[in-house]
Amino acid sequence: MTQFFQTELRLRSLPAGYHLITDEIENAIPEIRAIQTGYLQVFIKHTSAALTINENADPTVRKDFRTFVDELIPENYPKFIHTYEGPDDMPAHIKASFFDSQLQIPITNGVLNMGIWQGIYLCEFRTHASSRQLVLTAFGELSS
Amino acid sequence: MTQFFQTELRLRSLPAGYHLITDEIENAIPEIRAIQTGYLQVFIKHTSAALTINENADPTVRKDFRTFVDELIPENYPKFIHTYEGPDDMPAHIKASFFDSQLQIPITNGVLNMGIWQGIYLCEFRTHASSRQLVLTAFGELSS
Amino acid sequence: MTQFFQTELRLRSLPAGYHLITDEIENAIPEIRAIQTGYLQVFIKHTSAALTINENADPTVRKDFRTFVDELIPENYPKFIHTYEGPDDMPAHIKASFFDSQLQIPITNGVLNMGIWQGIYLCEFRTHASSRQLVLTAFGELSS
Repeated sequence: MTQFFQTELRLRSLPAGYHLITDEIENAIPEIRAIQTGYLQVFIKHTSAALTINENADPTVRKDFRTFVDELIPENYPKFIHTYEGPDDMPAHIKASFFDSQLQIPITNGVLNMGIWQGIYLCEFRTHASSRQLVLTAFGELSS
Repeated sequence: MTQFFQTELRLRSLPAGYHLITDEIENAIPEIRAIQTGYLQVFIKHTSAALTINENADPTVRKDFRTFVDELIPENYPKFIHTYEGPDDMPAHIKASFFDSQLQIPITNGVLNMGIWQGIYLCEFRTHASSRQLVLTAFGELSS
Repeated sequence: MTQFFQTELRLRSLPAGYHLITDEIENAIPEIRAIQTGYLQVFIKHTSAALTINENADPTVRKDFRTFVDELIPENYPKFIHTYEGPDDMPAHIKASFFDSQLQIPITNGVLNMGIWQGIYLCEFRTHASSRQLVLTAFGELSS
């Protein structure tokens, strides 16, 4: 027997940077524990923030992400036309497309089947962002 | 009761750049209106064009994408070996992998559950591309 | 009638670079042949290697990927803090997020419905990596 579970999660406002949100996601959709085989989809309803899966242990990884990506896609790029929402807006859109707007994670025996060093990042690219809204959709075969 | 709907969509030929195709996709698979909870998958069958979700309102966003990404991954990069299909070919392959070959969008109550500023982009990276073929697969629990 | 098939695949150790693994994936989950309409999900359980779909014919494409991406996200970037696992570690994390940690490929009539020039790449970003573990999840409506 298969079943869908779907909910929306509003995160607290986060500063620009890369933030681990694995626990918040798992807590928001505890029904994944009932799924034997399936997956969880995480979707972000915004175009200036994004999701990705990366290293979950050392905070310097997330700092280095910020330093490098902010230099690769800089606010002061002189040819941007779309600047009226601020210098951080257009870089945020480009970063959002280089990272992910959705993740699909396998579920096996009631847990997210990720590697032990993997965590889910919320990548916040705006300097003064409001809170971000996610859609969580789990689907799978229920444990009997 | 769950159901699959799958179809292929051939887009018209588009010039190099970033193009909003949300309406064309929704029109090609109207069965999403019958789905209460599920998702739509959009898959592109090419390696020199891509998909992404980004800002759907201001065309300058899509212009800035082109300016910036063309400069980041330039045609005149001197170390490319794979050049016999033209100078735009190898940059197109790299851009295609930095963007997405597939999108998965949640469906809630018969509509794509995206943010109000989100739209689906076809990212055309070749200068003289032929038309592009998409596979659209919707799956979900039907409204009762 | 719908069904899930899920298995894990440990790849052989691969050198840094971009490697075609379409055949290995198809061989590891032959049940896709029983699926009329559905999809295969490929998930990598690591944060310093990644997946992508790109050109499957000319090996110079994969060489050019390596040359270009290694120069775009260089080992000698002077501001990286997370360096104690070696100079190739932090660039590997960033590359992993620019590429994909998971792919979702439509299945139609028992085969992966990709374009004829598309193949699945394992992108190995570490110089001396151990073998990599994938989770393969196929789901769909069975052929009657």
